[in-house]
Amino acid sequence: MSPKITTELLKQLRQVMKSPKYVQEPVQAYIVPSGDAHQSEYIAPCDCRRAFISGFDGSAGTAIVTEQHAAMWTDGRYFLQAAHQMDNNWTLMKMGLKDTPAQEDWLVSVLPEGSKVGVDPFIIPADQWKRMSKALRSAGHDLVPVKENLIDTIWTDCPQRPCKPLITLDLSYTGVSWRDKIIALRSKMAERKVLWFVVTALDEVAWLFNLRGSDVEYNPVFFAYAVIGMNTIRLFIDGDRMMDPAVREHLQLDSTLEPEFKIQVMPYGSILSELQAVGAGLSPKEKVWLSDKASYALTEAIPKAYRYLTPYTPICIAKAVKNASETEGMRRAHIKDAVALCQLFNWLEKEVVPKGTVTEIIAADKAEEFRSQQKDFVELSFATISSTGPNGAIIHYKPVPETNRTLSVNEIYLLDSGAQYKDGTTDVTRTMHFGTPSAYEKECFTYVLKGHIAVSAAIFPNGTKGHLLDSFARSALWDCGLDYLHGTGHGVGSFLNVHEGPCGISYKTFADEPLEAGMIVSDEPGYYEDGSFGIRIENVVLVIPAETKYNFKNRGSLTFEPLTLVPIQTKMIDVNLLTQKECNWVNDYHQKCREVIGAELERQGRHEALRWLIRETEPLIRVQ
Amino acid sequence: MSPKITTELLKQLRQVMKSPKYVQEPVQAYIVPSGDAHQSEYIAPCDCRRAFISGFDGSAGTAIVTEQHAAMWTDGRYFLQAAHQMDNNWTLMKMGLKDTPAQEDWLVSVLPEGSKVGVDPFIIPADQWKRMSKALRSAGHDLVPVKENLIDTIWTDCPQRPCKPLITLDLSYTGVSWRDKIIALRSKMAERKVLWFVVTALDEVAWLFNLRGSDVEYNPVFFAYAVIGMNTIRLFIDGDRMMDPAVREHLQLDSTLEPEFKIQVMPYGSILSELQAVGAGLSPKEKVWLSDKASYALTEAIPKAYRYLTPYTPICIAKAVKNASETEGMRRAHIKDAVALCQLFNWLEKEVVPKGTVTEIIAADKAEEFRSQQKDFVELSFATISSTGPNGAIIHYKPVPETNRTLSVNEIYLLDSGAQYKDGTTDVTRTMHFGTPSAYEKECFTYVLKGHIAVSAAIFPNGTKGHLLDSFARSALWDCGLDYLHGTGHGVGSFLNVHEGPCGISYKTFADEPLEAGMIVSDEPGYYEDGSFGIRIENVVLVIPAETKYNFKNRGSLTFEPLTLVPIQTKMIDVNLLTQKECNWVNDYHQKCREVIGAELERQGRHEALRWLIRETEPLIRVQ
Repeated sequence: MSPKITTELLKQLRQVMKSPKYVQEPVQAYIVPSGDAHQSEYIAPCDCRRAFISGFDGSAGTAIVTEQHAAMWTDGRYFLQAAHQMDNNWTLMKMGLKDTPAQEDWLVSVLPEGSKVGVDPFIIPADQWKRMSKALRSAGHDLVPVKENLIDTIWTDCPQRPCKPLITLDLSYTGVSWRDKIIALRSKMAERKVLWFVVTALDEVAWLFNLRGSDVEYNPVFFAYAVIGMNTIRLFIDGDRMMDPAVREHLQLDSTLEPEFKIQVMPYGSILSELQAVGAGLSPKEKVWLSDKASYALTEAIPKAYRYLTPYTPICIAKAVKNASETEGMRRAHIKDAVALCQLFNWLEKEVVPKGTVTEIIAADKAEEFRSQQKDFVELSFATISSTGPNGAIIHYKPVPETNRTLSVNEIYLLDSGAQYKDGTTDVTRTMHFGTPSAYEKECFTYVLKGHIAVSAAIFPNGTKGHLLDSFARSALWDCGLDYLHGTGHGVGSFLNVHEGPCGISYKTFADEPLEAGMIVSDEPGYYEDGSFGIRIENVVLVIPAETKYNFKNRGSLTFEPLTLVPIQTKMIDVNLLTQKECNWVNDYHQKCREVIGAELERQGRHEALRWLIRETEPLIRVQ
Repeated sequence: MSPKITTELLKQLRQVMKSPKYVQEPVQAYIVPSGDAHQSEYIAPCDCRRAFISGFDGSAGTAIVTEQHAAMWTDGRYFLQAAHQMDNNWTLMKMGLKDTPAQEDWLVSVLPEGSKVGVDPFIIPADQWKRMSKALRSAGHDLVPVKENLIDTIWTDCPQRPCKPLITLDLSYTGVSWRDKIIALRSKMAERKVLWFVVTALDEVAWLFNLRGSDVEYNPVFFAYAVIGMNTIRLFIDGDRMMDPAVREHLQLDSTLEPEFKIQVMPYGSILSELQAVGAGLSPKEKVWLSDKASYALTEAIPKAYRYLTPYTPICIAKAVKNASETEGMRRAHIKDAVALCQLFNWLEKEVVPKGTVTEIIAADKAEEFRSQQKDFVELSFATISSTGPNGAIIHYKPVPETNRTLSVNEIYLLDSGAQYKDGTTDVTRTMHFGTPSAYEKECFTYVLKGHIAVSAAIFPNGTKGHLLDSFARSALWDCGLDYLHGTGHGVGSFLNVHEGPCGISYKTFADEPLEAGMIVSDEPGYYEDGSFGIRIENVVLVIPAETKYNFKNRGSLTFEPLTLVPIQTKMIDVNLLTQKECNWVNDYHQKCREVIGAELERQGRHEALRWLIRETEPLIRVQ
């Protein structure tokens, strides 16, 4: 990896920062955040502006360019990568280290008095604008919205915004029609006495209309906004996608519908002016509901007194609770996914052990190949983390030719991968050894497994927030002075984003919504030894009602059911460190893998993988 | 309990709400919060304004009186008590129930347009003012500060503000002189670049100057403020307390000191004008540090641009980490406290079982009597919760003649009590049965015990926040569908407030400071069966370094050491529900009780209590 040479680009950017063509007054600093106008986690190439200006293409980072300086804030996952990808024009600001200044403090320390700091109001979320603006104002500076994105003005070969065909999902996948979703949304709006709801997150638009797209890699979404009134539905979307007869039929665009279900299709770019018109037409006490993560531009379109902002939208919350059709789809997707992984691991054992020719990239490609043979496969759900030995300790590793390592009988192999199927989204991590693991490696693996089981088998009252379960995953590691520096689980979409709110299992969040039956999260504790190995055991699990002796005075009991059914390598387990209960959990889990995945492997005629599955699910025996 | 008749009082209050003598413009509503000007948890009789106007004297509640209505917000602990104590003029607003409006929403629903809502700016914390003011303003009303407290104007027989003598604490108790505390505070101020620090919490003033008082019941504090500059110390305190030679000597008021340690003593009531003078004299970039819980009045004395507000002050954080002298004092206090409780429980067994003449109040008084015989006893640290049978299920129960129940061999007895000794503060809960507990009672007790042990024996990395340990206390209960609706632990002062920040163990907080060695918290899970019984097992525990195999890559390991050494009734334990590790914990704990408390009982010649201790600490034997 050689750094991107940015001298000329920065010179151009500094010119447009002063050009009356783009800014009313010169800006002394310009902020380039990571995101797109929808605050997406995964973004399209045309939105990779921060990577364009700096060379650093990690998933998280904010660039700030002043007349004298160019600085990049990113977190511990990317210190190395950012340092490799950026040239000397850039200063790396290592977030999380004690001496690293916050962006606003740094700005205050380098800016001349009374400076203007520019940012694209479509990219910055309203809550971040508020914080940054307040900090700058109290130091005598101003945060100003710059309408035209200044990176776009100098990015001559910027790729087009994608505009791919849509996929319509029928009731057998979604369980609820888009009409019924609109009805439910309007009833939530009536409860809160709001007249309008603005859908800004891409997965929320997709979910609401039972449509999927492929404008962004890994996330089956498409660029669109929607504005839902009590009697109107406006969908802001570009291209000829609305000409597709299947889409027209699905959205009933040509039917004579009750007016309140008639969808008005409008250009993607007209959202701001339409929203401003909505804002201008409001009477006192009429409110517009937006996520507090919506862009500053859209939030400002509604006068402050009329805004109703919440951290989680009613769509985000409804989307998280999967109905029976979605749950069944997720089950099917996970069965297919497990078949592919059984094939992969069987293949790896045959290739790695005697030949030693399989690299991380080859393994990742093979995993994709096996998955793509399964019915309704669409694409991967994220970039496969295929890592062996020391690469496994890099939590968000993705193999590239420069780092690509060959799997061997001497190193631990960690594979964190998943796929989008038309019936569901998967995300699974397994950690294996193709030779003989050391006692220490087995010890660490077993603590991680104990943590995984502690969460998976946890019983808790209805209404418990996921963050209250996070320590269960760490307790066995903590007892020996080990820990891992990431959360334990995230929400998983149903043929949607592999990371979704509003629930999760992490020490870092407090504002998560309570867990309820039907929610789907990951359970993925780990342990990482820098320079040596990484261990993670991840299942996607479904929140289900539990049976308890006293049932929390009828408040109701919850627990988890694993949807992922892939063997956990018993060779890595030190059985003597497990309690009998934990040992039974593993044996019950493997029994279920045998029954469910075994039957599917049989049905698909994949006999070699079936034999591998049977071998790998032999019951553990604990010596008392 | 018959309700207080408030018709006349409310009439008078509504008159002064319109009287130009007290308000610039009439106020249409007046808010009467619970607290005093220091946001204390326990308040002096002269500050019980909400109890005076309404009759409701629970520890938490906010009254709002409008021209037409009088409403009281309180939480689930007090629904019954408030309903009993208030007459028909009052509407009870049950906080936590779904249909109960927030105060601001209720105000908006009942007030005529453009109303003024008054509140005493000294009583309302700045953060609450901000929230309430914003909500009212967005609905077209105004929150206004009413300088003279309107309750005081109609409270003709209001008691005097207490002004009791001070106690000076020498280095053997405090470990650090007040001079060195000032030096440390000034260094924190320099770090944050603030020039002034305003001490508003009573326990922070007491801690800083190594003084104690008795102006408020249970909390050994005195009414005072302090303003610390980089070269000045101002102490705002009333009465002739500064004439006491011991106090003068302790504060070196008559010595020739370096000017930066010379304490200027000023009248308590002059804090506002002095602070306004400080505020008026500030140059740009000069900041004044206040707690964000400081009163609106004092916060407003400093112009907004000069304020530096934090949720926890440096004094609050320093105070929480006990030094060796304080820790040793706490140990001594807990040994004395355990002696008193061994005497009490031995006495109860002798009295309750054959005679049945002991009531909750008699038991509480007896506990106080035994404690008061111990060296350096000062007072109780909170109102004793002495409760038997169904009263035990009322979490904040305090026996009064109307509810006073007689202890018997048929009911569970729960005693939550503690004391202030000159060397430390105690808080301990034990749950006992004087007859034969049922299998169900033992089952519940054992789950609570398992939760208690899970926290007490937990090992966790340095820097872990206490709220991450809360679920450990619930896991065994959750497995059977049981739970308790309070936090698991609170910080405990050193001969100071029995509840103190900034650390604790609760699912409710997220802003707690990380635990570090030397902090002291309670560990008190429980289980409550409405109408039947209550169970709680509480020890005060000290955060200490732990030894772990891998020590978190040198981040350091922590665990807890129980300071409370009072036997846990083995009769209540179903040994078969304990793991061998839990069983060992109980046996080790009881062995330590025998050694440490046994020796002290021996030394004090309390042989009967010693025999009780020996009987109660027989090792448990678990049948495999």
